[in-house]
Amino acid sequence: MNNKPAQIYLIPCTIAPNTQESVISPRIKQVISAVDYFLVENVRTARRFISSLKLRAVSDLHFEVFNKHTDEQEISKLLSPLRNGQSIGVISEAGCPAIADPGNQIVRWAHRNKVKVTPLVGPSSIILALMASGMNGQNFEFHGYLPIDKILRLKKIQSIENESLITGKTQIFMETPYRNRALAEALLDGCADQTNICFACNLSSSTEEVRTKKVSEWRGQLPDLHKIPTIFLLHA
Amino acid sequence: MNNKPAQIYLIPCTIAPNTQESVISPRIKQVISAVDYFLVENVRTARRFISSLKLRAVSDLHFEVFNKHTDEQEISKLLSPLRNGQSIGVISEAGCPAIADPGNQIVRWAHRNKVKVTPLVGPSSIILALMASGMNGQNFEFHGYLPIDKILRLKKIQSIENESLITGKTQIFMETPYRNRALAEALLDGCADQTNICFACNLSSSTEEVRTKKVSEWRGQLPDLHKIPTIFLLHA
Repeated sequence: MNNKPAQIYLIPCTIAPNTQESVISPRIKQVISAVDYFLVENVRTARRFISSLKLRAVSDLHFEVFNKHTDEQEISKLLSPLRNGQSIGVISEAGCPAIADPGNQIVRWAHRNKVKVTPLVGPSSIILALMASGMNGQNFEFHGYLPIDKILRLKKIQSIENESLITGKTQIFMETPYRNRALAEALLDGCADQTNICFACNLSSSTEEVRTKKVSEWRGQLPDLHKIPTIFLLHA
Repeated sequence: MNNKPAQIYLIPCTIAPNTQESVISPRIKQVISAVDYFLVENVRTARRFISSLKLRAVSDLHFEVFNKHTDEQEISKLLSPLRNGQSIGVISEAGCPAIADPGNQIVRWAHRNKVKVTPLVGPSSIILALMASGMNGQNFEFHGYLPIDKILRLKKIQSIENESLITGKTQIFMETPYRNRALAEALLDGCADQTNICFACNLSSSTEEVRTKKVSEWRGQLPDLHKIPTIFLLHA
């Protein structure tokens, strides 16, 4: 890769433990073998991911942290290896960088500075959940995290249910795993009996479970979602 | 796989020619090696895709067509091999099945009939485009195809621009490749100077090009998008 101009590779990582041998594409392995400098959301998990691929010694690589606390002025400094012709890999905490994380600031900087950005194919829990939900995949919305405050969360749930009712769009959102149960209960409290809810859990792993039912069918038999990585989908 | 209950595998395929060796994960190869019956959007392209993986003789496999002309009553018949313990692979024309295609009807049938659905990791042009656009990846909407009629299309463009302005959401949409130029021109005509437009072309291929600029910067220098597979993104 040395004779090509330096660029930024957006490198997806696994979303479930010990799945690297099944979900990581040859292209990702090729790029990780060639890049020495990584901007990562979390150094520990990024090192562990690269290490699991058994391609090279992690001790030879350079890692810098980029996360929601990084301000825009630091970005140019973090990307300075590009000026010396060195390509950079961006790896987020789980799945695809710049989706549901602050990585898009790096990409925005690259567009402004005419640096090529190459997104690699890899695990996206949003897409896996939508595929397996059976809900409308031709029109959908992703909301990220819903509000934590109970009243604001209920308001948001009712607004997205209403939006789905009017437009037919699938509504996708997530939660910090230890608050999953509270969100699932809020969905059953706030939504109409006929609204469809999908819980997509442990995606891409051997314990994966994706189930879609009406609110009335979920009542009294909510699955145990506590601390289980889950994507929530709603279709009214 | 013979001692597990029969299930439906949602199998992503390539989105650009000759990329199977770089983007297709080991898990997809494993499933295609084990499944004999496929529901596909287009038999010719599905056979060509499986054939390109060089895993087995395509002549040994059974293909049935499922597309937008298939009515709901036929689905149960098409899925009848499940009742004999045979798993089924679903392959769409490009990328991830049940996203931007009618495959979700198959998945809905599966949920109703308690058949397990396993979505596999693979190329999604929507996710690759969003990653590389530099636009908001925490809140976004996918609209599928915009209306063909000029007046309706302009109305839709202005409504999604307005939606992005109010909510900050990235707006993602697509077009049949021979109408790309008309859509790009309609975007420049219909949107405000400051609105950001991204054209994400030939994703995952060696001719991939993803560029984000303001409407005012695109004016007079639109790239040639004619018949080039493109995802369009807008952020006001």
